[in-house]
Amino acid sequence: MKLNIALLAGDGIGPEVIDQAVKVSDAIAQKFGHEITWKPALTGAAAIDAVGEPYPDSTHEVCKNADAVLFGAIGHPKYDNDPSAPVRPEQGLLKMRKALGLFANVRPTFTFPSLLDKSPLKRERIEGTDLVFLRELTGGIYFGEKGRRDNGDTAFDNCVYTRAEVQRLAKKGFELAMTRSKKLCCVDKANVLETSRLWRETVQAMEKDYPEVEVSYEFVDAVAMRLVQWPNSYDVLITENLFGDILTDEASVISGSMGLMPSASMGAEVSLFEPIHGSYPQATGLNIANPMATVLSAAMMFENFGLMEEGKAMRDAVNKALEAGVVTEDLADGGKAYGTKEVGDWLAANI
Amino acid sequence: MKLNIALLAGDGIGPEVIDQAVKVSDAIAQKFGHEITWKPALTGAAAIDAVGEPYPDSTHEVCKNADAVLFGAIGHPKYDNDPSAPVRPEQGLLKMRKALGLFANVRPTFTFPSLLDKSPLKRERIEGTDLVFLRELTGGIYFGEKGRRDNGDTAFDNCVYTRAEVQRLAKKGFELAMTRSKKLCCVDKANVLETSRLWRETVQAMEKDYPEVEVSYEFVDAVAMRLVQWPNSYDVLITENLFGDILTDEASVISGSMGLMPSASMGAEVSLFEPIHGSYPQATGLNIANPMATVLSAAMMFENFGLMEEGKAMRDAVNKALEAGVVTEDLADGGKAYGTKEVGDWLAANI
Ligand SMILES: CC(C)[C@H](C(=O)O)[C@@H](O)C(=O)O
Ligand SMILES: CC(C)[C@H](C(=O)O)[C@@H](O)C(=O)O
Repeated sequence: MKLNIALLAGDGIGPEVIDQAVKVSDAIAQKFGHEITWKPALTGAAAIDAVGEPYPDSTHEVCKNADAVLFGAIGHPKYDNDPSAPVRPEQGLLKMRKALGLFANVRPTFTFPSLLDKSPLKRERIEGTDLVFLRELTGGIYFGEKGRRDNGDTAFDNCVYTRAEVQRLAKKGFELAMTRSKKLCCVDKANVLETSRLWRETVQAMEKDYPEVEVSYEFVDAVAMRLVQWPNSYDVLITENLFGDILTDEASVISGSMGLMPSASMGAEVSLFEPIHGSYPQATGLNIANPMATVLSAAMMFENFGLMEEGKAMRDAVNKALEAGVVTEDLADGGKAYGTKEVGDWLAANI
Repeated sequence: MKLNIALLAGDGIGPEVIDQAVKVSDAIAQKFGHEITWKPALTGAAAIDAVGEPYPDSTHEVCKNADAVLFGAIGHPKYDNDPSAPVRPEQGLLKMRKALGLFANVRPTFTFPSLLDKSPLKRERIEGTDLVFLRELTGGIYFGEKGRRDNGDTAFDNCVYTRAEVQRLAKKGFELAMTRSKKLCCVDKANVLETSRLWRETVQAMEKDYPEVEVSYEFVDAVAMRLVQWPNSYDVLITENLFGDILTDEASVISGSMGLMPSASMGAEVSLFEPIHGSYPQATGLNIANPMATVLSAAMMFENFGLMEEGKAMRDAVNKALEAGVVTEDLADGGKAYGTKEVGDWLAANI
C-alpha cells in the first residue's frame, strides 16, 4: 500500500514521540511491503511562533490531501492561564477538527496487566477494563453561537445538535459494538436537556437496525460515578462533545495506563491519530517522554486502513517491551529507565 | 430558638430516613431547649400521584414560609427511561430550586476512617480527603432557553450566566474557603466556553477582596481526572450548574462513604438540606435504608442557623454509632445489621 501521512508533531514532547512512531511505522512498512510518505506540517504553539496561527492553511492543505494524520501534542505554558489570549494553540485544534470534519473521537481505555498497580483504583475494580468512548467532536456547545450581551455582563454558549449529527456518530457506535461485546451505552442528560432528548430518541430509533446490540441509556452524572466504581462494566459508550471531554479524561486515569492510551478522530475523508497525553512541556528535549501511546496511535492508523496484522505487530512489540522492561522512566518503577529514542529503537527492531 | 421546618419526605426511602432525622432533631431540640414545628408537604412522585404535579403551589407556600426545608429523596421507577414523560419528579426539583432561589448547592465529600476500605480507590489516595463543592444551582444550561427547530430535527439548549450570578456563588466560595484551608479552585472550561470566561474573569476580579485565599483555575476535564487521582489535593471548589452535577456525583463515590453524604442548597431566604443519595425504590418500606446522611443533613441545617454545638452533637452521635457498629446493612460488612428505625432510635438516645 502507498500511504501519504500528514505528520503534525506539534509542541513540547510532540516531536520526540512522533519521531519514534515514524521509526516504528517505517519498520512496519518495510516488513509488510508498504510505502509511507511523511508530510510534516506545523501546528500548535510551534505554528503560532512561525506563522501567527495554530492551524495555518498550509497545514490544512497537507492534512486534507493526506490519507491520514499522525498528531503529537500541542500546548505551551506561555499560553496557559490566559484563556482570553487572542491566539491560542487550542483554537487550532478546534479549527482543525471542524475543517477536517473529524466528527468521532475514539478513546479506548484498557489495562495492561503489568501496569494495574499504577491505577488509583483497587485492582479488583479495574481488572478486565476494556471500554471505548465515541465522543462527538464537531458539534454541541463547542461550536454553537457564543458571546456577550449587556456590556459584557451576560455570557452565553449555545449547544446545538441535529438529528443527522447524532445518527452519524451513533452509527459508528453501533458498528463498533457489533465488533465487540454488542453492548452500547448512550450517555446523556435527557432529564434536563433538549439536545439530550434528541440524542436519546435518535439512538432509540436506530436500535431496530442493530437488533443484536443491547443498548442502555444512562445520565452523564451516573456514568461519572460508575466509571470510578465499576469501569469494567462498560463496553462502548457514545456521547456528545462536552460530556465526552469530561468523561474520556476521567476514564483515562482509571486504568493506570494513561501514558499508553492512543486515540483516533475519524472523519468522512481523513482521520487523525494521536496519543491522549499532552505536550508535557517540562520534559521537552530530555529524551524521557514515553513514546508508546504515539506508537499505539499509529497502530490504530494502520488498523483503520484495514491493515490489521500491521497494527497487531506494533501492539505486540509494545507488549513485549513492557514485559522486557524496556520502558521510559514513568514506568520504570525504580528499575532501569530507557530513553524515548532507545524505546523507539527497540520497538522498531522488534517488528 | 423557634424553628419552622418544612418537611419534604418525597419518594421511596425518603419518608423512612426523614422520620429518623426528625427523631434525632427533636432530641436535639429537647436537649438544647429549642422548639421545632415540622410542616410536612408533598413532593416528587408522591405529589404527582396526589395532585398531578411534583412541586405543587401548596408545597411552595409551606417551603417559602419555613425557616428551612428538610428533604428526603424523590424519584420513582415508573418515571425512569422516559425522559419525555409529560410530568416527571425531576421537574419538581428544578422548579423548586428556581422558585426558592436555591442558588448554591453545597456538597462536601469527606471520609470516615472506619469506611475507607469501602472506597473503590486505594487507601493512600483518599486518606484525608475533605473537600466541598459549591455548585451553582439556578442558572446555566439547566434554565436557559431550550427547544427544537426544523420540524424537530434540530435541538438546542442555551447556557447563560450573568456576572451577578457568578459573583453570588463565588462570594459563598471565598467565604467558605476563609473558614477552611483558604484554598479555592474555580472549575471551568474557559478555553472553549464564553460563559466560563465570564466565570473566570469574575472570580479573578474578586481575588483582591480575599487576599488570604489562594485561588486556582482548572479546566473541568482536568478536575475530572485529578478527583480520581488525588482527591485530597482539593479543598473548596466552585463551579457552574452542569459541571457541578457531573463532578459532585463523581466526587461522591471516591470516599467510600457515599451513603453518608449530606448536602445543602442555600438560597437568599430559605435553604434546603438533603442526603445526596436517591430514593432507592427497591428498599422502600423494608426498614433497611441508612438514615445517617439525612441526620447529617439535619446537622448542616442546625449549623446554618448558627447552632454549631447542636450540629456537632449530631455528628458525634453518628461517629459513635459507626464506631459501635450500630449501622444498617450497607455498612454492616457481615456483622449485625440494625434497621433504619433502630439506628434512628440509637442516635436519638445518644444525643
Ligand atoms: C484543549 C481542549 C480544547 C480540548 C477539548 O476540550 O476538546 C481537549 O481537552 C481535548 O479533549 O482534546
Ligand atoms: C435529577 C436531576 C435533574 C438533578 C440535576 O441534574 O441537578 C440531579 O442529578 C441532581 O444533581 O440533583
